Amino acid sequence: MGETGCYTYRIEPRDVDFTRQATLMALGDDILHAAGEDADRNGFGLRVLGANNASWVLSRFAVEMERRPAQYEKLRVETWVGDVSRLMTTRNFRVLDEQGNRIGAAVSYWAMIDLSSRQPLDLRNNPDYLKAVRDEPSPIEKPGRIARVEPSRTEAHRVVYSDVDFNRHANSMKYLEWMVDMLPVEWHTERVCRRYTLNFMHEARYGDLLDICFEDAPVSLFEVRNAEGTALCRASLEWK
Amino acid sequence: MGETGCYTYRIEPRDVDFTRQATLMALGDDILHAAGEDADRNGFGLRVLGANNASWVLSRFAVEMERRPAQYEKLRVETWVGDVSRLMTTRNFRVLDEQGNRIGAAVSYWAMIDLSSRQPLDLRNNPDYLKAVRDEPSPIEKPGRIARVEPSRTEAHRVVYSDVDFNRHANSMKYLEWMVDMLPVEWHTERVCRRYTLNFMHEARYGDLLDICFEDAPVSLFEVRNAEGTALCRASLEWK
Repeated sequence: MGETGCYTYRIEPRDVDFTRQATLMALGDDILHAAGEDADRNGFGLRVLGANNASWVLSRFAVEMERRPAQYEKLRVETWVGDVSRLMTTRNFRVLDEQGNRIGAAVSYWAMIDLSSRQPLDLRNNPDYLKAVRDEPSPIEKPGRIARVEPSRTEAHRVVYSDVDFNRHANSMKYLEWMVDMLPVEWHTERVCRRYTLNFMHEARYGDLLDICFEDAPVSLFEVRNAEGTALCRASLEWK
Repeated sequence: MGETGCYTYRIEPRDVDFTRQATLMALGDDILHAAGEDADRNGFGLRVLGANNASWVLSRFAVEMERRPAQYEKLRVETWVGDVSRLMTTRNFRVLDEQGNRIGAAVSYWAMIDLSSRQPLDLRNNPDYLKAVRDEPSPIEKPGRIARVEPSRTEAHRVVYSDVDFNRHANSMKYLEWMVDMLPVEWHTERVCRRYTLNFMHEARYGDLLDICFEDAPVSLFEVRNAEGTALCRASLEWK
């Protein structure tokens, strides 16, 4: 059975917003960073996959946080591989504070794709990967499918240099940043985002002109659309 | 005489662009982070100053890099306090690779301000600060004054939630990000930014509507203006 990997982070000045607490994006970055480190450690990281012309693609991501940790606070992210099906795998996370108290948890779905064909690869053919699977349930509800959004407000965004990562596609956490930037700024002091779910459907590329659509319901809903109106990413944010 | 502080960093996936090299912003962040850590260690960090209703304000910043380090590369940033005058102090930096070779250097000018009056404080009244001064010259040419820019292209930018830091002003490296995002994307593969200089004149606040002005000369020039046309920040970027 696979092991749980543990990775430590510190909330740095660049990770916090004006409340001096970590942004949702910085926390998501740390969680996804732990996923990358743990994949590396187990022999199926991006560097190994890249040599085989393959890569990981994040498909869905759900994060729940009790609170946003403060500047200079230290975190421990524990992560393990859950289920594996033919085309999708689950990676789970727990987020602990310095005293070992659980302050958050996350569940992510990933596909492994061939970089030439962009088609998913059968994960059951990867013995290293199967060895990492751990028989321990996901710590929170898995990320569900988000239905089409009926926007009450829309903002345009051109995908720029600083949005894209090594494959010239927008970085996962940038979608969340574009969304959160549309919210009334007071929400960041008055509310806590208890849970968010992201669905990644198609990739936004450098230069794409996007619409960031916001449906201001009790659960905030977002949809990022390209110029043809195709939904690239959807999100739901629950507040308390 | 003050000591040189040493701080280590690793170039993480979120620090790189599509060339898998650290962005200028990520490198600048690491350098400024070392400044913050070193100030903390010497008793005049933001946390101590904040308790006295004071803060550091970055006034000018010049960075020279031989190359942009690659993803997962480790860096060492050495930093020390140079001159102190009544209203301004110099902090110097060397950037070393894992083998100890110098791959970059930087010089910054800072003022210490009273947070209520926004007026600069006399640095010569701070004995902890005077003790930290080190009689060692700046490793590169100091950041000069940049004259008014005659833009060939201008883009609008609204200062959003993710742009601002704890005082609801735009983070220093965000100005550089807005500028670099205007450059032709091929420059990041075809050219190396040998040196850049930033002049910070006034702060951009949450919600401000800015013009990012670009003068496409042999040395790229930028000016960030507010709605009244006041220059908030200027920059020059030299390429090779």
